Amino acid sequence: MQKEDLIQTHQRIEPYIHKTPVLSSRLIDEIVGATLYFKCENFQKTGAFKMRGATNAIMQLTEEQKQKGVVTHSSGNFAQALSLAALKLGIKAFIVMPSNAPQVKKDAVKGYQGNIIECEPTLVARENTAKEISQKEGATFVHPYNDNNVILGQGTACKELLEKQPDLDYIFTPVGGGGLIAGTALSALYFGNDCTVIGGEPFEVDDAYRSLQSGIIESNLTTNTIADGLRVQLGDKNFPIIQQYVKRITRVTEEEIVEAMRLIWERLKIVSEPSSAVALAAMLKEKNSFKNKKIGIIISGGNVDLNQLPFNL
Amino acid sequence: MQKEDLIQTHQRIEPYIHKTPVLSSRLIDEIVGATLYFKCENFQKTGAFKMRGATNAIMQLTEEQKQKGVVTHSSGNFAQALSLAALKLGIKAFIVMPSNAPQVKKDAVKGYQGNIIECEPTLVARENTAKEISQKEGATFVHPYNDNNVILGQGTACKELLEKQPDLDYIFTPVGGGGLIAGTALSALYFGNDCTVIGGEPFEVDDAYRSLQSGIIESNLTTNTIADGLRVQLGDKNFPIIQQYVKRITRVTEEEIVEAMRLIWERLKIVSEPSSAVALAAMLKEKNSFKNKKIGIIISGGNVDLNQLPFNL
Repeated sequence: MQKEDLIQTHQRIEPYIHKTPVLSSRLIDEIVGATLYFKCENFQKTGAFKMRGATNAIMQLTEEQKQKGVVTHSSGNFAQALSLAALKLGIKAFIVMPSNAPQVKKDAVKGYQGNIIECEPTLVARENTAKEISQKEGATFVHPYNDNNVILGQGTACKELLEKQPDLDYIFTPVGGGGLIAGTALSALYFGNDCTVIGGEPFEVDDAYRSLQSGIIESNLTTNTIADGLRVQLGDKNFPIIQQYVKRITRVTEEEIVEAMRLIWERLKIVSEPSSAVALAAMLKEKNSFKNKKIGIIISGGNVDLNQLPFNL
Repeated sequence: MQKEDLIQTHQRIEPYIHKTPVLSSRLIDEIVGATLYFKCENFQKTGAFKMRGATNAIMQLTEEQKQKGVVTHSSGNFAQALSLAALKLGIKAFIVMPSNAPQVKKDAVKGYQGNIIECEPTLVARENTAKEISQKEGATFVHPYNDNNVILGQGTACKELLEKQPDLDYIFTPVGGGGLIAGTALSALYFGNDCTVIGGEPFEVDDAYRSLQSGIIESNLTTNTIADGLRVQLGDKNFPIIQQYVKRITRVTEEEIVEAMRLIWERLKIVSEPSSAVALAAMLKEKNSFKNKKIGIIISGGNVDLNQLPFNL
């Protein structure tokens, strides 16, 4: 994927997404001893950066494909994003969700007029159900992250951040399936000025960290993290980009995630997901390495269950 | 207070405050059937609109007064605001706080280099202690809301909102001591285009509502509300402005406050105080009266204890 691909992607999706704000906090800067710029995708449509990739993937379909719609399996932010992107572009979206997905997530998808198909709560059942829908309806399968058009879309958040702050030394993102960090790494390469990308990952789902160590894609043995957006498996399209362009991945504990989340909520006054806090937690963990640097942090989203916050545990 | 006073106030304090953003939510607009613009003072310095009034009050002091500093009694947002405004303007601030004030509030004041003087947790003790400090140090007493310079400062939030959205039909604010709503009413009068100001007040501290009914300042028999910023007595400088320029005050229940707060957090993705939600709650309560109108809501602040959120109660 070249610089021109990212430029065209951004032009393509711009009418359908928000140019999200970049926030700062004097107090967080004092704690870190550096200058931090938070790119706030919690203010993005559907409350997460996923809207960027979903919109780009749909817009790259042929007219014939568009007529038959799209299908994905997700119970998270990508389900909402694909539903809304499809709605805005006038095509059908089929969303395969596990039968035990929270009602609030189903309602959100319905709110964007996505067609929900329930399946057993296993990865095999999800994949098979999506395949069936794809065959039956002729709908094109769009993977939540293992897709070059999705990766390019997610990269536009970093592009916007660098347009506002061109001289960032570092950018931190969370790492789940790898769509956000792969897109970010490409944008940093093409639009940054010697800008280094570092990932944050929970110890509890450290497949990307271990994959970088071993050189092959490793599996997660546990997904026991509060960062629900990151409980997924690294994609094989994302991995080589990460290998080539991401400096390293820093692992953080659950306590470090909650501590970073608290700092974001208390100081930036924004509602953001635990997954978002993983990027700041990674930065804080090694803050002495970043004194006086200019640092971007991608706040990935803000869809959080207010009834299950971790602060008073 | 004239239009020119507000214009000069805004010019005076502008270098020391943030021009806070105005946010919207498609979903909240759909629920209400109107177009809402939220003026987000939770992003203001010290996390609340109080920074505006505190800054203006200090800047209106004589050079001699400035040399001797300022004193106030507050355990809330005004304590932090006066401390930071004084710090930025290079003068001393003495903050009288009840001995049982939460440590987090004392720490916040100390963070802005305010000098804390503790006293017994009664209103009489607070007032007497502030008087003693004023006499001993020669510091000028600045009231958190019953002060024309404070009222003018608070009015600049509405002025900024109207500069961005000049054709608002209504503006809602919460009502505590009356500084914010009095300043807002003056700004709406001078800078609005037939713009009506309505207040929201908890049933549990409805002194302003009852004062408007009776024509004299009434006292609160209870202060048993989650909206901690509003647990104060209406000021006699604020009352006549409210009588003359505020259309009405709508009272809301504690449940309505929490429901509005949840909507703000979930949809606008911002951390804001229960007091802020009172303005939206008042609007929602009579939403059928505001169909297709353009409505401003002042989000007063975002200083909230994350360990004591009302959502999972």
